[in-house]
Amino acid sequence: MPLFRFRPALLATTALLLAAPALAQAPAAPAAREVPAKSIPVPGTVSPQMQAIIGQPLRQNWDKPPTTPEGWRALAESNVAAVAPQIPAMAERMRVSIEPSTIDGVRVYTITPADMPAGNRNRLAVHVHGGCYVLNPREAALPEAIFLAGFARMTVIAVDYRMPPEAYFPAALDDAMTVYKAAIRRVPPANLAVFGSSAGGALTLEMMLRAKQEGLPMPGAIAPGTPMSDVTKQGDSFQTNALVDNVLVSPDGFCDAATRFYANGHDLADPLLSPVYGDVRGFPPTILTTGTRDLLLSNTVRMHRALRQAGTEASLQVYEGQSHAQFYRDDRVPEVKEAFGEIAQFFDQHLGR
Amino acid sequence: MPLFRFRPALLATTALLLAAPALAQAPAAPAAREVPAKSIPVPGTVSPQMQAIIGQPLRQNWDKPPTTPEGWRALAESNVAAVAPQIPAMAERMRVSIEPSTIDGVRVYTITPADMPAGNRNRLAVHVHGGCYVLNPREAALPEAIFLAGFARMTVIAVDYRMPPEAYFPAALDDAMTVYKAAIRRVPPANLAVFGSSAGGALTLEMMLRAKQEGLPMPGAIAPGTPMSDVTKQGDSFQTNALVDNVLVSPDGFCDAATRFYANGHDLADPLLSPVYGDVRGFPPTILTTGTRDLLLSNTVRMHRALRQAGTEASLQVYEGQSHAQFYRDDRVPEVKEAFGEIAQFFDQHLGR
Repeated sequence: MPLFRFRPALLATTALLLAAPALAQAPAAPAAREVPAKSIPVPGTVSPQMQAIIGQPLRQNWDKPPTTPEGWRALAESNVAAVAPQIPAMAERMRVSIEPSTIDGVRVYTITPADMPAGNRNRLAVHVHGGCYVLNPREAALPEAIFLAGFARMTVIAVDYRMPPEAYFPAALDDAMTVYKAAIRRVPPANLAVFGSSAGGALTLEMMLRAKQEGLPMPGAIAPGTPMSDVTKQGDSFQTNALVDNVLVSPDGFCDAATRFYANGHDLADPLLSPVYGDVRGFPPTILTTGTRDLLLSNTVRMHRALRQAGTEASLQVYEGQSHAQFYRDDRVPEVKEAFGEIAQFFDQHLGR
Repeated sequence: MPLFRFRPALLATTALLLAAPALAQAPAAPAAREVPAKSIPVPGTVSPQMQAIIGQPLRQNWDKPPTTPEGWRALAESNVAAVAPQIPAMAERMRVSIEPSTIDGVRVYTITPADMPAGNRNRLAVHVHGGCYVLNPREAALPEAIFLAGFARMTVIAVDYRMPPEAYFPAALDDAMTVYKAAIRRVPPANLAVFGSSAGGALTLEMMLRAKQEGLPMPGAIAPGTPMSDVTKQGDSFQTNALVDNVLVSPDGFCDAATRFYANGHDLADPLLSPVYGDVRGFPPTILTTGTRDLLLSNTVRMHRALRQAGTEASLQVYEGQSHAQFYRDDRVPEVKEAFGEIAQFFDQHLGR
C-alpha cells in the first residue's frame, strides 16, 4: 500500500499546509551564537609548507593601520622592499621574463613565459593585484601575476594601477579599464582572461560591471580570488573567521581602513566597490578561490551564488585551513601549485585560441 | 629595460635558490591559534527563513548521546515520530507519490513525481539517508529523497538500510549496494544518480569505492552532501566550526558516538568509513554541497580536492552561514530550493537519457 499517493486535487490545500510547522522549528527571534574561547591547532591535513603558513601568528599591526597619507605610503613601500628582492628568483623558477612599460599612460608589467604552448600564443591575461586598494605597488604587485604566467604558460599584463594618496576611487578601476580596452584590441575578447585576488578579485568583478556599462565585450573567463566583493562588512565569515584568519584578522582591521582611504567618502555599497550588489548577468565563466579560514569566505561564496543565480558558469575552489589569499603565498607550496593548476585548466577550457 | 629577463642558463642555479627565504616567513614550530570567545550574530545575508534556522540554539543533548542499544533505538524512533507526520504535506508540496517495498530483501521507498519531463523517464536516482549511520530510519529517511524527486522531477529509490542495533558495519553499505545492483539492471548505469548527505554522503562515496572493487560500472553522476568523509576527526573545520555549527556542534558529540556504534570496532580510517582516504580515480561527475558554518566544511572541501586531484569533474557548492546539512532542512526555504536546483541541474547535465 502506498505511504502517500499524490492526488492533483489536493493541491488546492497547499496554501493551508504552508502554515504547518516546518522541519525547522524556528524561535521567534534568532539569537546570536555564543562561542567560547578556543585553541585551534594547525591542521595536519595540509602540506608541511602550508602548515607553516597557517601556523604564522596574526599579521603584525593588523589593528594599527596608518592614519596619514604618508603612513600608508610608507607601508606600501615596505611591501615593495620585502617583495622586490624575491622577484628574480621567483621569475626564474617560473621561467618568465618581466618588462615594465606603460599602456596609454597606465603603468604595467608584461610577464612572458620562456615557453608557451601553441594554443596560448593568441591568448592574454590581465592581472589586477590585491592589497586593499592601497598596498602592493610596483614589484609587490607581481607574485600572483608571475605564478599565473608560469603555471598557465601564458602572457600576463599586470596593472600597476594608481593608488591613494596618488589617486582615489575610481582611479584603480579606471586604470584597469584602460588596459582592458588595449587588451581587447590585441587579442579577440574571447581569448582574454582577467584575474586578481582580494582587492584584485573585486577589481576583476568591477571591471566586468564597468565593461557592461560601457558596452564593451566580455572576456573569455575571469578568476577573482577571494574577492573583496562586499566591503560593507556583511557576510558571516567576517565574524566566524575573525581572529582565525591570520592575514586579514578582523573586519575592523587595516584592510577596512585602507578601503575607506581609497573610497574617499564614496558609498561602500556601490557595486563598483562591493560587486556582490551588482547585476552580474552576462558575466563570463568564472573560477573563484578561497580557504576555510578566510575572513572573505562568505564574500567568496556569496559572489559564487550570485553568479550561479544569474546563470553564469562559476566554479568554486575552497582550500583546507587557508586564510585570506594564502593560495598564492609561495609557488613552491603544493597547495599553491594546485590552486594555479585549477585556474590554468579553467582558462584553458574556456578561452578561445 | 626589462626588470627580469629569463635566461635558460640560469636554471642550473635553481636548486640553490630554493633555499632562499620564501614569501612565507614560517616559524620553526607552527603554533595553535588562540581565539577569544565570540558572540556571532545571525547573518543578514540569507533569507529570513534561513536566518531562523541559523538562529536555532545548539542541538539538544548534542553532548549526551545514548549509551545503550535501546537508547539509540529510542532516539531513532523519536526521529520517526517527529518527521513522519510531516511527510504527507511535504509529498504534496513536492507533488510526489511514495511507495514502500523491498528490493532483494532491502527495505526501500520509491518516490515518483506526479509529472516527469520526457528526458527523465529512463533515469533513476538512488538515495542513502544521513543520520550518523544510526539515526533516521523509515519515514525519517525521506525528506531529502522527496526534495530531489520533487525539484529534479525524477524517480528516487530511497534505501532504508539496516542500522545498529539491527546490524553493524558494513550492513548499511551492503544494503545500499544491493539496491545499486538492482538499479543498474533497471536503467543504463549512465542514467543513474546516487545521492545522500552526511552519513548518506559518505555512503554515496563508499558505494563508488565498493563498486570499483566489485568491477561494477559507475553511475552517471553523484551528489554527496556534506559527506562524513573522514570520521577520524581530521579536518580543520572540526575545530574552527566547533560550537558554531548548531547541528553537529562538536567532533566529540552524538554523531561521533553513533559512528563508533555502527563501526563496531572496525578501523575508522578504512576508506569504507572515511572515503577521503580511498582511491577515487574513475569516480563519476560529482556535486558536493556544504555551508560556511558546517562542522564538515573541511570534510567536504577535502573530498572535493581529492576528486579534483584524481581528475574528476567535481563541483563544490558552499552556502552562506549554514551549519551541517541545513541545505535540505525545509523545501520552502529559498536556499533549499537553490541547493536542489543546483543538484537537479548537475544531474540533468551529466546523466544519460
